[in-house]
Amino acid sequence: MSNTTSKMDVFFNPKTVAIIGASESFRFGYGTTSYLLNSNFKTYPVNIKKDTILGHKAYKSIKDIPDDIDLAIIIIGNEYVLQVIKDCVEKGVKGIIIESAGFAETGKEKYIKLQEEVEKIAKQSKIRMIGPNCIGVTNFHNQFTTSDMDFVHAPKGNIAVVAQSGVLGNIFIDWANSNGIKFSKAITIGNKVDVDEVDLLDYLNEDPETDVIALYLEGTKRGKELKKVLGKMKKPVIILKNGRSEIGSRAVNSHTGSIAGNDKVYEALFKQYPSVFRVDNFYEMFNVAQVFATQPLPKGKNIAIITGSGSLGALACDEIVKQGLKLAQLDENTINKIQSVIPNWVSIRGTIDLGPSMFETFVPSVKAIFQDKNVDCVLFIFSIPRVPLQRMSSYALEGVRAQLNILKKSVEKTNKPCILVCFGSRWTFDFVTEAASHSESDLNIPIMTRINQAIKAFKMMEEYNKSIATKIT
Amino acid sequence: MSNTTSKMDVFFNPKTVAIIGASESFRFGYGTTSYLLNSNFKTYPVNIKKDTILGHKAYKSIKDIPDDIDLAIIIIGNEYVLQVIKDCVEKGVKGIIIESAGFAETGKEKYIKLQEEVEKIAKQSKIRMIGPNCIGVTNFHNQFTTSDMDFVHAPKGNIAVVAQSGVLGNIFIDWANSNGIKFSKAITIGNKVDVDEVDLLDYLNEDPETDVIALYLEGTKRGKELKKVLGKMKKPVIILKNGRSEIGSRAVNSHTGSIAGNDKVYEALFKQYPSVFRVDNFYEMFNVAQVFATQPLPKGKNIAIITGSGSLGALACDEIVKQGLKLAQLDENTINKIQSVIPNWVSIRGTIDLGPSMFETFVPSVKAIFQDKNVDCVLFIFSIPRVPLQRMSSYALEGVRAQLNILKKSVEKTNKPCILVCFGSRWTFDFVTEAASHSESDLNIPIMTRINQAIKAFKMMEEYNKSIATKIT
Repeated sequence: MSNTTSKMDVFFNPKTVAIIGASESFRFGYGTTSYLLNSNFKTYPVNIKKDTILGHKAYKSIKDIPDDIDLAIIIIGNEYVLQVIKDCVEKGVKGIIIESAGFAETGKEKYIKLQEEVEKIAKQSKIRMIGPNCIGVTNFHNQFTTSDMDFVHAPKGNIAVVAQSGVLGNIFIDWANSNGIKFSKAITIGNKVDVDEVDLLDYLNEDPETDVIALYLEGTKRGKELKKVLGKMKKPVIILKNGRSEIGSRAVNSHTGSIAGNDKVYEALFKQYPSVFRVDNFYEMFNVAQVFATQPLPKGKNIAIITGSGSLGALACDEIVKQGLKLAQLDENTINKIQSVIPNWVSIRGTIDLGPSMFETFVPSVKAIFQDKNVDCVLFIFSIPRVPLQRMSSYALEGVRAQLNILKKSVEKTNKPCILVCFGSRWTFDFVTEAASHSESDLNIPIMTRINQAIKAFKMMEEYNKSIATKIT
Repeated sequence: MSNTTSKMDVFFNPKTVAIIGASESFRFGYGTTSYLLNSNFKTYPVNIKKDTILGHKAYKSIKDIPDDIDLAIIIIGNEYVLQVIKDCVEKGVKGIIIESAGFAETGKEKYIKLQEEVEKIAKQSKIRMIGPNCIGVTNFHNQFTTSDMDFVHAPKGNIAVVAQSGVLGNIFIDWANSNGIKFSKAITIGNKVDVDEVDLLDYLNEDPETDVIALYLEGTKRGKELKKVLGKMKKPVIILKNGRSEIGSRAVNSHTGSIAGNDKVYEALFKQYPSVFRVDNFYEMFNVAQVFATQPLPKGKNIAIITGSGSLGALACDEIVKQGLKLAQLDENTINKIQSVIPNWVSIRGTIDLGPSMFETFVPSVKAIFQDKNVDCVLFIFSIPRVPLQRMSSYALEGVRAQLNILKKSVEKTNKPCILVCFGSRWTFDFVTEAASHSESDLNIPIMTRINQAIKAFKMMEEYNKSIATKIT
């Protein structure tokens, strides 16, 4: 572990924490304060106006705390931040997270200067700092967080997410968790006076709890270092880079005080590195990351589509062509096996339309499809309307659960990736995720709502597999 | 009303109905049977094997029914369909919906021939027929349906949807309803032996309950007539056309037995008509239709973005540029009004970042933005994480409800369209729709989860407005 890497650990596993601006009223900072004070992480509240915070002794200054402090979290008005950082330096903390906003992102001279002062201290002191204008970090494995994280709904996983913007961190973790996507670490870096995307890629590349990295990037101040670290990544990095447009760049500029840069430069840069995949929006970023995090890499471009709806199958074919992949042409043996169990009027010439198929049809068909040498990936499109599912209730739940288990076992047995795309109301989506959560152990098959994202994920996995193979040979 | 149009009414408001293949077990057809037998629509079950169906006298043949029959619904094995249709002709029914599958969509000679026989009878008898291989129609205003519709969750609205595929009809109505989108009529046309997209566009163009038409098209056999009807449409028609790829076309071909045709021809065709807008997927189709169905047309290209997240604002700017629209440059007066109520470090130079703003900030800011002469459309991005919302519970719900009411009133007062894009978990989405449903009467502001669809909708509305203005001058 490099010095940089070990120094970063203080953000994810601090022995002692001070919250400067600890709050017991429902304002920004309350969640962090109440969570950490009741956690196993030794936490000291600092508040200039209070003697106690939520029943714990509060200190007027970090310097008054009778203990060494690993990590200071700053959640106070921008005008007080500079003095408090100086106190932290005196105290000898190892890391600082500045959550306060009101710096370069305002676009105002006064606050840009204030940020420059903070930056200067970071450089001189060599204390690692995250922020300002962020919500800091979450470590889902030891449940340390400096933001408002609800671990009941956020189990640990193997995807790390790095974002600049504060709100986004939690908003998308909410979304992802309700879609079965699980994280190792989440970091929001705000205006980046010190720790930035380069440091974090470096750190996460060595993090044993992280297999895939999702990075939301608004720009970089360290192009050369970014290139270097992207070149040495041993894990897939899924990047969403905004500011493609000039007005978008200006909006970003006023937002985190960073320079969005010329999008074409970034586009060309990302294309150079086999581990880097650029996506178009947040949903795609997390869905693609989830596929990388849970599925084996495909050995080729041939996608079999199992669907109860010919129309959705046709739309999926359009996406396959758009992404330069191929619709799998089933082997004669496979076709014969399927035709021996389905009604003779069902067509399986293109996509495999099993209709609202019964279990006795589904099991042998799916097994044969996965085992077909002409199939590299399987896309399963689930599209049963709510009303018949509700009518069948527990029977339907059992049936779908059994179907999902067959998919899961087939993935394990054949080492071919599978994605489930679910159409219908949120009720249907919940029904399928409910069935998935009751499957034997973890289902571990991504469930999405968009065909194009599933096909894109297969495409990126296929490219990644090729690049790895090239490296080995 | 033309003769064609009046003849089509039998599908949406029949006086008497026969269900041939009425079922009392949980198979395909059960939902329709049990619903219609318990409805106000006078319904006669026909089943060759049963004397009663769900307590109602069943007839061996439609010819045995001692009443005139307006509409026959056929839900039996494909091999019996031809004879039953002949019975219907003898009986003198006015319309037939053939839901049975197993015709040209199989790609098999035998079943293609069977479909041709049906087609011949349709032509000779002049009885209007929908199908085969479909789930027929739903009229949300009088609650007549031949499919498995749950009217408790499907209130009446002003969007008509036409699809070829059966499954899709209900699946996407499920989805749309859970997103606050409401329909007038839904029609699935299957293999189109008689009634097709041309007939329905013609009919819906005159339907007083329909303001917007969403059409999923896999191809047409009547190019010339399609052109003619598209040219005379008085309502926006949102079209999703699949089969863009050749393999997609083949999949469609095997699916509904229709010819998908050369996509470029369709693309050029759709572009000719100012009322026609092509979309990329089902979600987009329904979301765009919803904007047309509920929002006033914008008078120009300038979009104001109100957001609590600078990053999402920047991504929205990228989309605005991509669609050839403009980020609204607020008038100095508006900026001054907003700055008098927000903290001095908040930036509103690009997107309007009101942060997690309090009501006293939100109301005057939003009012000023809507009233700004440089603003034509308003995009409101909602992105508050779950945990703080849950903590504030009813207070937060009240707050969001009040915000939504301000948006609604502003739309009404200024006649400018507004779309709400909601980020976060499904919990957050439900929270916002819950707040919306408690707003003063209907909120009537579309709630989406994708920025790009909102911007696309503004773009199409702006184009539609221009084309209407051109027509008038």
